[in-house]
Amino acid sequence: MELEFVNWLREHNQAPLDSRLQVGIGDDAAVLQLNDPRLVVSKDLLVDGVHFLASEHTPEQIGQKALAVNLSDLAAMGARPRGAVLGLAIPAQLPNDHDRLDYAKRIVKGMLPFAKEFECPIIGGDTSKSRGSLVISVTVFGELVTSEPMLRSGAKPDDVIMVTGPLGGSLTGKHLDFQPRVNEAFQLVQTGLVHAAMDITDGLSLDLARMIEASVCGAVLEEASIPVSSAANEMAKTSGRPPLDHALSDGEDFELLVTTDSQTADVWAEQAPCDCSLIPIGRIVANRGLFIQPPIGEIRQLKPKGYLH
Amino acid sequence: MELEFVNWLREHNQAPLDSRLQVGIGDDAAVLQLNDPRLVVSKDLLVDGVHFLASEHTPEQIGQKALAVNLSDLAAMGARPRGAVLGLAIPAQLPNDHDRLDYAKRIVKGMLPFAKEFECPIIGGDTSKSRGSLVISVTVFGELVTSEPMLRSGAKPDDVIMVTGPLGGSLTGKHLDFQPRVNEAFQLVQTGLVHAAMDITDGLSLDLARMIEASVCGAVLEEASIPVSSAANEMAKTSGRPPLDHALSDGEDFELLVTTDSQTADVWAEQAPCDCSLIPIGRIVANRGLFIQPPIGEIRQLKPKGYLH
Repeated sequence: MELEFVNWLREHNQAPLDSRLQVGIGDDAAVLQLNDPRLVVSKDLLVDGVHFLASEHTPEQIGQKALAVNLSDLAAMGARPRGAVLGLAIPAQLPNDHDRLDYAKRIVKGMLPFAKEFECPIIGGDTSKSRGSLVISVTVFGELVTSEPMLRSGAKPDDVIMVTGPLGGSLTGKHLDFQPRVNEAFQLVQTGLVHAAMDITDGLSLDLARMIEASVCGAVLEEASIPVSSAANEMAKTSGRPPLDHALSDGEDFELLVTTDSQTADVWAEQAPCDCSLIPIGRIVANRGLFIQPPIGEIRQLKPKGYLH
Repeated sequence: MELEFVNWLREHNQAPLDSRLQVGIGDDAAVLQLNDPRLVVSKDLLVDGVHFLASEHTPEQIGQKALAVNLSDLAAMGARPRGAVLGLAIPAQLPNDHDRLDYAKRIVKGMLPFAKEFECPIIGGDTSKSRGSLVISVTVFGELVTSEPMLRSGAKPDDVIMVTGPLGGSLTGKHLDFQPRVNEAFQLVQTGLVHAAMDITDGLSLDLARMIEASVCGAVLEEASIPVSSAANEMAKTSGRPPLDHALSDGEDFELLVTTDSQTADVWAEQAPCDCSLIPIGRIVANRGLFIQPPIGEIRQLKPKGYLH
């Protein structure tokens, strides 16, 4: 099946390949021409039952998510996507090679719209039967568009913490169907004013805890400023958890979490330098630890909580 | 578990990372400094029951193989390894996070000797639970050391076909424990005299069929010249198949298959330009098709056969 899949992939890849792919799909390796010798690499593995449900979600949805989560990682660095390779372990329960090939093609078809939109062609692939659940492994390559990438480790005391969109409740649908913030990240990195950045995959509180750990500082969230999504409000009706808790810990929001100095943040809160709003949600402090300031009452410590994949 | 694994990976990576890894393990993506903006990429997925047996093989053996097969793909292009990323879907049957982490660490430990020898650090990783069998996905990055990579498609009529070692019987042990021909490939590509190259993964007859398809030509193997491994002879004692059949179709030999002009081949057969012998096994012909010449009797068509992963 693999050869047939690879041949199909070569023919169906819609992203503009010609000028950059010196050696394409079908040889032992692909050769991709970068503009810059600094290679940005990310890899996310998606497994049935953890990141998606093969029994509920279409292969197209699963494929789209598999590429999108990786593009979101490149966005977090401010890198421009240049290509991806795909590994698929397809359950042997699918009765024959034809069905498995069809499933693999449908996964790729789900990837192609973002591959095209973000000029991130699928330049190689490998498939195998799996005795268990579906596993999708995507590795994306990108290049830097600026002298430095955005990193988790750059947050400084007195920085304002900002997010690119509402949080929580992703499980109701957004986790499968979100727009990776690739273009917004280009716009942000090119300002040269972002101190730290990452994407929110495991939940605001857990990811922010990682950012401040990497930056060796602390953070205070302003509870009233955290943009709680309508999906979080919806989920709260049945979950028995407050909407804020969903916003802090559901994860898979795939919004960017950035910090910048307070003057810049004031400007950006009014007029964002990118095609989405930037919402200030708190500030970086010198004292280690993660805290939250409720609208009324004392500041309190916030236990990082999230969706550990 | 993932964070703990990534932290461990960062600390235990023995390959020389410092000068090349601008951003290492632990951010959303890694940034690797290449010497050349032409990125060579390969990805091989290994699945329990197809590429290894988790019930029989140690995680160290499995890890070693997972990196080695990918290094062999880079070797086939004449590319220098620069880094790898690892995706692991670890069976949920392992009772707890600690056991899964331990298993993941042992897989990486199996990778480290080759990572060090070939200066191919593991610059990122992702782990997840799998509801089924163990799946290992490795993506390797390399760079070209010459103006052009070696390709499958360069074989020309009258070229001599050569291999770097004996073939067949890999299942008795070599498939897990082989030396990827990375250094030999450097030496070969730097001669500038290789017309076509690939590594033998699925079996000589099947892989040669792919080479001549890519090169739009045919090939005639000299039966008596094909180096049949002692393992192939051993397996033939119980398999009911002739040793030659094992050499032609067992696969996972991970030797290089190259073609060059006949004058060069004469020289190379006497004194190879690399740290292993080069054994002439046949020639490329203009007529499409794969043929074999027995020591006595008529040339006959050879049906490509191999181990389809």
